[in-house]
Amino acid sequence: SFSRGMKTVTLIPGDGIGPEISAAVIKIFEAAKAPIRWEERNVTAIQGPGGRWMIPPDCKESMDKSKIGLKGPLKTPIAAGHPSMNLLLRKTFDLYANVRPCISIEGYKTPYTDVDLVTIRENTEGEYSGIEHVIVEGVVQSIKLITEDASRRIAEYAFEYARNNQRTSVTAVHKANIMRMSDGLFLRKCREVAESYKDIKFTEMYLDTVCLNMVQDPTQFDVLVMPNLYGDILSDLCAGLIGGLGVTPSGNIGSNGVAIFESVHGTAPDIAGLDMANPTALLLSAVMMLRHMGLHDCGQKIQTACFDTIREKKVLTKDLGGNSKCSEFTAEICRRIQDLD
Amino acid sequence: SFSRGMKTVTLIPGDGIGPEISAAVIKIFEAAKAPIRWEERNVTAIQGPGGRWMIPPDCKESMDKSKIGLKGPLKTPIAAGHPSMNLLLRKTFDLYANVRPCISIEGYKTPYTDVDLVTIRENTEGEYSGIEHVIVEGVVQSIKLITEDASRRIAEYAFEYARNNQRTSVTAVHKANIMRMSDGLFLRKCREVAESYKDIKFTEMYLDTVCLNMVQDPTQFDVLVMPNLYGDILSDLCAGLIGGLGVTPSGNIGSNGVAIFESVHGTAPDIAGLDMANPTALLLSAVMMLRHMGLHDCGQKIQTACFDTIREKKVLTKDLGGNSKCSEFTAEICRRIQDLD
Ligand SMILES: CC(C)[C@H](C(=O)O)[C@@H](O)C(=O)O
Ligand SMILES: CC(C)[C@H](C(=O)O)[C@@H](O)C(=O)O
Repeated sequence: SFSRGMKTVTLIPGDGIGPEISAAVIKIFEAAKAPIRWEERNVTAIQGPGGRWMIPPDCKESMDKSKIGLKGPLKTPIAAGHPSMNLLLRKTFDLYANVRPCISIEGYKTPYTDVDLVTIRENTEGEYSGIEHVIVEGVVQSIKLITEDASRRIAEYAFEYARNNQRTSVTAVHKANIMRMSDGLFLRKCREVAESYKDIKFTEMYLDTVCLNMVQDPTQFDVLVMPNLYGDILSDLCAGLIGGLGVTPSGNIGSNGVAIFESVHGTAPDIAGLDMANPTALLLSAVMMLRHMGLHDCGQKIQTACFDTIREKKVLTKDLGGNSKCSEFTAEICRRIQDLD
Repeated sequence: SFSRGMKTVTLIPGDGIGPEISAAVIKIFEAAKAPIRWEERNVTAIQGPGGRWMIPPDCKESMDKSKIGLKGPLKTPIAAGHPSMNLLLRKTFDLYANVRPCISIEGYKTPYTDVDLVTIRENTEGEYSGIEHVIVEGVVQSIKLITEDASRRIAEYAFEYARNNQRTSVTAVHKANIMRMSDGLFLRKCREVAESYKDIKFTEMYLDTVCLNMVQDPTQFDVLVMPNLYGDILSDLCAGLIGGLGVTPSGNIGSNGVAIFESVHGTAPDIAGLDMANPTALLLSAVMMLRHMGLHDCGQKIQTACFDTIREKKVLTKDLGGNSKCSEFTAEICRRIQDLD
């Protein structure tokens, strides 16, 4: 069913509250007349030839065509040897950059105001290499892998992002005082790339120092770029500053235009199906997606309606401090979108 | 010069502001009649046989006898191949546990109140193994080393600490979902040790989740135990919550009663010699030291005088928001100690 001017997006609703919050996003996109056609796909892992875990072929095919995915939360697999589906998706589509804007939300009170930063995490290597050995009984090593190519690629992404998003500084986060060769290589590539972006201020800072400074005054940071594990930590820390994973969008960017946008909170099985979930993180991720697709006006409209709803505090889900249902919160955003037209 | 009932402590004043803040601590200890005899030693690294870096023999000998050290900040070496003196000290004396209590200081305003937690960091292995290789041009690996022995030892230290300090819970911080073998081993040892401490609640949490929860509500945490790098990060983050490294004490505990207490802030060369430095972190580290030596009353007296001075806000160094000199702040603490007698 091809429609004129419509773009296809692969929708992976996910587990737990995933289907509800996905339904909310679909409703809001309809209200905004977003030119998106959803192709819904499941990503329960299956075992392919030789027992290799893979995402289902129909999901892979959809993504290969659409290039753009929106994804709800996926439950953590419990079977031994079963990989994290989130990691498998990053790997399958070489989603090398994880981008998380953390921007204070007016009206949603936290100890911090005016946070406005973006963490950019290398998403393919580092501590996530998966290479581990038992050396002798009781002695284990894990290998952190840093390559020149991946380091240059993420550094370039960070500087391009800064330039294209009217941001003025990039901070490379590292522990090259300890991991002199690996973080040293990462840092060297950042420095080299910085040479080509004289319009962007470049600084480098130890991870521990960033954490300390971050909780003391996050407003000093702008774009931060870092290896995989540091990004895992720092992106969650920064999400905490603005209200947590329930309100923080995330995008995983690959080469050749492929990207998957996702809410990074859990599946919340305790409230699944009860019309209580907060769709904000998935909705703001969908807004990031619209911008990525060049649909800025549509994204802006949805974001304004969402932030206005939160600022007004009249119709909020429980986790946001209100007592409205997911469907009521969704309807309120839709109403505001229609008012904006 | 042996004095009856006096205990010897090796004092490493350190660089930059180190000598001034050490002098402040000596003054305050005198006012408190602390039964401590200082043996001052320098720790500029020297190169021994075969070019191996080592701490000067007279410092090593002093520590071997006294077993207890108090250390100011040391400047980061700039010569290539020169090791961090902090790391060399940890290594030389097998200081396997880094302990940092983070407790809100009344009157010193930060976005958080009622923080009262302790980070306990494995201090000898993990990401700090120093083992790195170039695999092929542009591909580097760093090895994270986790051993059963070091993991059990730090877990035992954490539970003993909790029990001896009237604390009720220990949280193991890990990424065993990613580093299944190495962090998995660390976590398994924590679980095993927890079995022997039924009076202490044991929980486990992902590092990213801890960071997020920490900035949202640090009061939920009590004792946290973790591998080396995670401790580096989390201890600085937590210091940030209560006012930064200028007010956070730290202790490095080894086997056989050896321990070095230290301020973990920098050498602040810009204000060195100007009587502007804040001795609080070194003083509170010295108080930790007194408690470690069983001199609880003396430690308590000094701590009370220090916290009273900060709460009163009349005589504070610049970094604490006042305009007094280091010597005035020191004198005020001494005056209060005499009043307490
Ligand atoms: C689910 C987990 C494997 C993942 C990670 O550690 O990267 C998560 O924490 C994230 O940040 O996306
Ligand atoms: C000085 C540096 C080597 C050290 C570390 O990384 O451990 C410091 O950050 C610390 O926490 O003591």
